[in-house]
Amino acid sequence: MKEDTKRYRDMFSGFSGKYLKEIDGFVRDFYRKKIESSEEEFMKEMYGSISEYCLRDGKRIRPLLVLASFHGYRRGFSGTGEIVKLAASIEMMHSFLLIQDDIIDRSEMRRGGKSLHILMGEMYGARTDNRLIGSDIAIVLADVIFANVMEIISQCRINLKVKNSFLEIFSRTYEKTAWGQILDSMNSMLRKIEKGNDSPAKIGLMKTAYYTIAYPVMMGYVLSGRSSAREFDAIEKFALPLGVAFQVRDDILGVFGVESDTGKPTDSDILEGKYTLLIQEAVRIMDEKEGAAFLKLLLKQKKSARDVVKIRNTIEKTGALDSAIRKHAELIDESRENLQNLSVSKKYREILQGVLEAVATIPLL
Amino acid sequence: MKEDTKRYRDMFSGFSGKYLKEIDGFVRDFYRKKIESSEEEFMKEMYGSISEYCLRDGKRIRPLLVLASFHGYRRGFSGTGEIVKLAASIEMMHSFLLIQDDIIDRSEMRRGGKSLHILMGEMYGARTDNRLIGSDIAIVLADVIFANVMEIISQCRINLKVKNSFLEIFSRTYEKTAWGQILDSMNSMLRKIEKGNDSPAKIGLMKTAYYTIAYPVMMGYVLSGRSSAREFDAIEKFALPLGVAFQVRDDILGVFGVESDTGKPTDSDILEGKYTLLIQEAVRIMDEKEGAAFLKLLLKQKKSARDVVKIRNTIEKTGALDSAIRKHAELIDESRENLQNLSVSKKYREILQGVLEAVATIPLL
Repeated sequence: MKEDTKRYRDMFSGFSGKYLKEIDGFVRDFYRKKIESSEEEFMKEMYGSISEYCLRDGKRIRPLLVLASFHGYRRGFSGTGEIVKLAASIEMMHSFLLIQDDIIDRSEMRRGGKSLHILMGEMYGARTDNRLIGSDIAIVLADVIFANVMEIISQCRINLKVKNSFLEIFSRTYEKTAWGQILDSMNSMLRKIEKGNDSPAKIGLMKTAYYTIAYPVMMGYVLSGRSSAREFDAIEKFALPLGVAFQVRDDILGVFGVESDTGKPTDSDILEGKYTLLIQEAVRIMDEKEGAAFLKLLLKQKKSARDVVKIRNTIEKTGALDSAIRKHAELIDESRENLQNLSVSKKYREILQGVLEAVATIPLL
Repeated sequence: MKEDTKRYRDMFSGFSGKYLKEIDGFVRDFYRKKIESSEEEFMKEMYGSISEYCLRDGKRIRPLLVLASFHGYRRGFSGTGEIVKLAASIEMMHSFLLIQDDIIDRSEMRRGGKSLHILMGEMYGARTDNRLIGSDIAIVLADVIFANVMEIISQCRINLKVKNSFLEIFSRTYEKTAWGQILDSMNSMLRKIEKGNDSPAKIGLMKTAYYTIAYPVMMGYVLSGRSSAREFDAIEKFALPLGVAFQVRDDILGVFGVESDTGKPTDSDILEGKYTLLIQEAVRIMDEKEGAAFLKLLLKQKKSARDVVKIRNTIEKTGALDSAIRKHAELIDESRENLQNLSVSKKYREILQGVLEAVATIPLL
């Protein structure tokens, strides 16, 4: 079993290695041409910034899933090059969302570089008295990216009926993701958390499970030229548990992970008072009074190092951590089982399993 | 001539009256269904707000131009109902941009109601310590609208080749408009204006002429099933002078208009220190020293009533106002002449002329 796991992960890595270059290469060429054809100096500069931003290191999980799914479902020949363009446009849409996300979260860094609104503020702040010029430009630069994506979709040479199905999934993707983002904003910096508030589960479903796993796989499926309700259903049964497992894992690592693995301080979720699936589970286990005291501490504005330790210990002592780890394992098992029902080719089923096995491991301290 | 002018304007009013109802009716139904099918209470509430926002009083000039152009170009039968959906989606995209615009301009009102970020702040501000929750939600609600537009386009039943051409113009529309918006941000609250800075002309071209006139007419044209480079060229020759004339008119009314007509205080452009086509013209006429003093006063942070009067008088005395009025008339004449070269039917040429004649009149105090 262990060996199989490794083999699947290696297969996914091999697939990744090949297509990452094609995806990034397309984005690089696309923006190189935009820079060349722009009449205005500021457009050339900003297209340069967009290009650098879109090409920063990242897992490219969504475009890779689009491509793996497409290859797994397709029968006979189709133009893979055109599908790479659409997959790349999904990564560009991810940048569109990240730019907005950083403005909303007031984040200064993204993927090892400055977030776009910070960058724009530095580049154009000196000429105006508008202190928010960086965000103002970045909001609209995100729109430039979305217009670029529309251009790529309109110019991509695939069967037009297939393109239309793709556009339909595309619209569902960004609608659901936006609702997830809004629910997330509504559940940040809360003044009070009611017991039984199950927003973390909904946010995980919309912002992670659908957005990162289910819709990319569906996109690959419709791009293969088919669209049966039964297969959409099978895709959800595989993708949603995997996506929620990913979210549970992320929430656990946000509190108990190794900083050098996760890339973010392990007290940041607690300091922010983030209401995650893990916290929701801890409160579910506690009685009314304990739960209220715990949430009050979590929402306290300036938490001391002792507060952080106390919160972390409570999550562990109540059994919420174990329960979350168990939940994660169950979800992974459910997804692994349902993967067998996808009508993809054997090779690509194994590649998809590679993604699953990567999410299955939780590297705790 | 005067009588003809009135006839054209009446024809456009008649056309408007009919299609405004269809456009708004579609938007209303679309969001009614969204409200009904939303699972979550917050989605129902927010879809209600989006619907109210999109349906506020407005001229609907862009969707009306899409429809007038479509009718003028089409030969034989096509499904007008489907075209109304696409036209309505262009008005929804306008709301997408207005929401962002109000966040960028820190505007609290829009079309006789509260701007969306203010509204969201009032509805959801009490539950969180995030003072910017209103903007955070509004940015993402704009994305919901854009996803809704993608849904409408994907579900619209027209020839798929035609739809693809529409999507291509759509992508160009929002790319150019975004660049215009960015250039506008870069030229707001300036610390210094170099003589010869011709950004106002570029902004007018991108944000008004292309966005409001040229692209909507092109959309109607491609929706009629054709796409000849010669006709695109003819459309630009008609639409761009008209659009720039509209911008010149707007700039003049911003300083010399009647508040009850324009709906905004006539000193707001001056107080903001807005660098418009009118200001650009005034500086062009003045000598180096006069120009520098004039711009310094315009960019002064807190201007007195006397400063405002002085700026207004200078624009008039230098002859910049007369020159702008002349420029406006020339542009209108150019557009009127080029309108004759569009290969649209007589009836719709007259309807398009109705739009032109409305822009031709500058109601000064």
